[in-house]
Order: sequence, then structure tokens, then C-alpha cells
Amino acid sequence: MEDIGELADRLREFAVAREWEHYHTPKNLVMALAGEVGELVAEFQWLTAEESVRVMDDPEAASRVRAELGDVFGYLVRLADVLGVDLLDAAATKLEANERRYDPATYRGTFRKAPPLP
Amino acid sequence: MEDIGELADRLREFAVAREWEHYHTPKNLVMALAGEVGELVAEFQWLTAEESVRVMDDPEAASRVRAELGDVFGYLVRLADVLGVDLLDAAATKLEANERRYDPATYRGTFRKAPPLP
Amino acid sequence: MEDIGELADRLREFAVAREWEHYHTPKNLVMALAGEVGELVAEFQWLTAEESVRVMDDPEAASRVRAELGDVFGYLVRLADVLGVDLLDAAATKLEANERRYDPATYRGTFRKAPPLP
Amino acid sequence: MEDIGELADRLREFAVAREWEHYHTPKNLVMALAGEVGELVAEFQWLTAEESVRVMDDPEAASRVRAELGDVFGYLVRLADVLGVDLLDAAATKLEANERRYDPATYRGTFRKAPPLP
Repeated sequence: MEDIGELADRLREFAVAREWEHYHTPKNLVMALAGEVGELVAEFQWLTAEESVRVMDDPEAASRVRAELGDVFGYLVRLADVLGVDLLDAAATKLEANERRYDPATYRGTFRKAPPLP
Repeated sequence: MEDIGELADRLREFAVAREWEHYHTPKNLVMALAGEVGELVAEFQWLTAEESVRVMDDPEAASRVRAELGDVFGYLVRLADVLGVDLLDAAATKLEANERRYDPATYRGTFRKAPPLP
Repeated sequence: MEDIGELADRLREFAVAREWEHYHTPKNLVMALAGEVGELVAEFQWLTAEESVRVMDDPEAASRVRAELGDVFGYLVRLADVLGVDLLDAAATKLEANERRYDPATYRGTFRKAPPLP
Repeated sequence: MEDIGELADRLREFAVAREWEHYHTPKNLVMALAGEVGELVAEFQWLTAEESVRVMDDPEAASRVRAELGDVFGYLVRLADVLGVDLLDAAATKLEANERRYDPATYRGTFRKAPPLP
């Protein structure tokens, strides 16, 4: 898989080949995304912080986590495709806003919510 | 922003510059991802299916949805980076499994859960 | 089961009998709640609004939905118990705030977000 | 607030008084529940396990957590009311199944997923 555009194309073709486009409203895809994120959360719920850092050392847990990440990313890319949103652009816009909002000198070491940008 | 790798690099640098890496355990990042997906769900909760299809026609709603997608994607990329998972590979693996699992002739037009692959 | 207090007691005893209290930090229980809500969302993701209204007419779907609601409620009650929060009080407080915030005459028939209460 | 039944009645009256019942399909209420759980998760995402245990010691955090629990519980009760599900019964059924599924002697101290009940 080359890039997000190729993944979006293949997910669209997957839906078209099965005549499943009618399921793929933004509302339904947002729910599918939330359901998959719930499965990812469940993989981590009883782990300590330290265990979560080492989760990929266990081949079975690693395989489940990787599969859940694939499900989450697939629905996110399909949702963005249906909405006509460029995910890299959208994330870059937010990152740049956060770079202005959270001055490194002020927030070093400790997170607290910054006031919204003017 | 060129690709996922560049976004992952910039998100890592953002955390390092603020000494926030200690917050970015997989467990915490999964929670941050779930929190942002909750905000995305909230944008769609009272919309009908038809309204959700046209959500990007309203500039204010479009701006909020785009920002939430950026937040979700940012945390997903940061999480995958911390775990050492290639998101495109993980999604391709799942898509290929679903292509085998859901034969187009059998599942045309109507989704139901297929038995797991052997 | 008589009331929420009895359910909270039995869930606490269930954890104590298995020496699982160390898993039941608020952080972990919030994640378990989110995971179960994800499973509930997944039951509804491909249903139309109309199908969702009739979901309990199908005995198999009804049984799954009822089980997921039981899981969600169980973790919510356990979480509130661990935090020392009275769920009925907390919900009543929010309901009363919303009764003041959303004047029936102004908001009749159409929801839009009200400004926060002063 | 006396019990869940009274809360369900008052939430129904709240919706009726504003002619908002058309928003309250099971599908929409599940999304509203997921959105509120996302806000609850966000309160805990950067806390260590230990900080999460003491979260109610900070009056501002306690107030936010209590408000989010009230929102989550309100939507859960409204959803169960619309579906005709008794939350206490549903949770008791799941608890009894888990009491059979997780024998205390076998699972003492360490959780792992039990095989489903026959």
C-alpha cells in the first residue's frame, strides 16, 4: 500500500463491489470508527502504563493491537474519503494550531489545557 | 504534509520539545484517541442519515468535523508511532482478510457478519 | 436486584472475591466502560434510524443489546462506586441545569446548543 | 431523585416538553452516550493510575467528573427507557453469568479472558 489515497481507493472499491455504499453514510462510518476504537481501548484497559509500553513484545497481543489499528485506520480513511477531507491536511492544521497554542517554555514537562487561540 | 511518516516525525518533535513524552504511553494515547472520537461522534449524533451526507455543505459544521478528523488522525498516528506499527500495512492486511471473508456474490447489497476466516 | 446500591455492593464483592481490586482504578474502569460502549455502538452502526427503533423486535439482536446495556451499566456503577459518586444525584443535577438552559418555548422541536449557564 | 424509574420519567418529560422525541432514536441515543463517555475518558487520559485514584480530591476535577458521570448516566437511562430494557435486570444477568464464568479459585489475582459459557 503506497499511501492514504490508494487505501481510500481500495476501500471504496471494496464497498462498491459488494453494493454496500448505502451503509457508508458519514453517520454510520463514525459509529463504525467508534466501535473499532472501543475494541482498541479494550486491549489496553487492564494494562498498567508500563505493560502498555511493552504490549508489542507479546506476539499475540501485538497481533490483536495491529489488527485493531488497521480497523480503526480503515474506517477513518473511508470516512474522510466520503466527507472529502484530506487527513494529512486536517492533522497538519491542528498541529500548527497546537504549536502556537502550547508555547514550549510555558508548558514544559506538564500539560494543562491552554486557552483557545484568539 | 507529505505523508504519514512526516506527520509522525512532527508529532514526536512536538512532544519532545515540550517534554511531554512521559504522557505518551500507549495506554494514554489510546484514551486520547477515544476522547477525540467521542467529539467526532457528538458532531453527528442528532443528524439524520441524509443530514450527515450533507454535513460538509455547512461551513461551520465542516470546519468542526475537519478539526475533529485532524485530532483523531493525529493521535492515531502518534499511537502507531509509539507502538512501531505501520498503519498502511495494518489496514491493508485487514482489507485483504475482509476481501477473502466477504465474497461479493454472497454478500451483495446486505451486510451480515461472516464467520471468521479459518 | 433492588437498586443501584445493591448492584454496587455485588460488583464490589465480585472484585474482592477474585482479588481484582487492583485492576479497578478509575482510569481502568473508564476504559472498560468505553470499551463496552463501543460494543453497544457496533450493534447499531449499520441500522437505519427506523431499524434502530425496532431493534428489540428481533430476539437475537434484543438479547445482544440487553447484554451490552448490562455491561455498560455494570462498569458505570462500579466506576461511580470507586469514585464515591451518587449516579442519581449527578444525573439529577445535570437534568436540572438543562431544564434551565433549554427553555421549552425557545428550543421547541429543534435542538441547537444553548450558551452555557451563567 | 428516588430511583432509575423516576429519572427515566423526568428525562422523557424533558424530551416531550421540547418536542425532541424525534431525536431520541436508539441509534442517536447510543451516539450521544458514546460522545459523553468520550468526554469522561478525556478527564482521565493524562492521569497516572495513582492520580486517577485521587481525582475526586481536587474540587474542580471532581466537579467535572461528577458532571460527566451524570451525562453518561442520563443518556444510558434514556436509551434503556426507549428500548424498554430494565438496566438493573440486565446488569444482574451479566453479573451472574460472570460469577459462573470466572471461578474465584482459578482467576484469583489475575484476570484473563475466560472461555464463553456453554
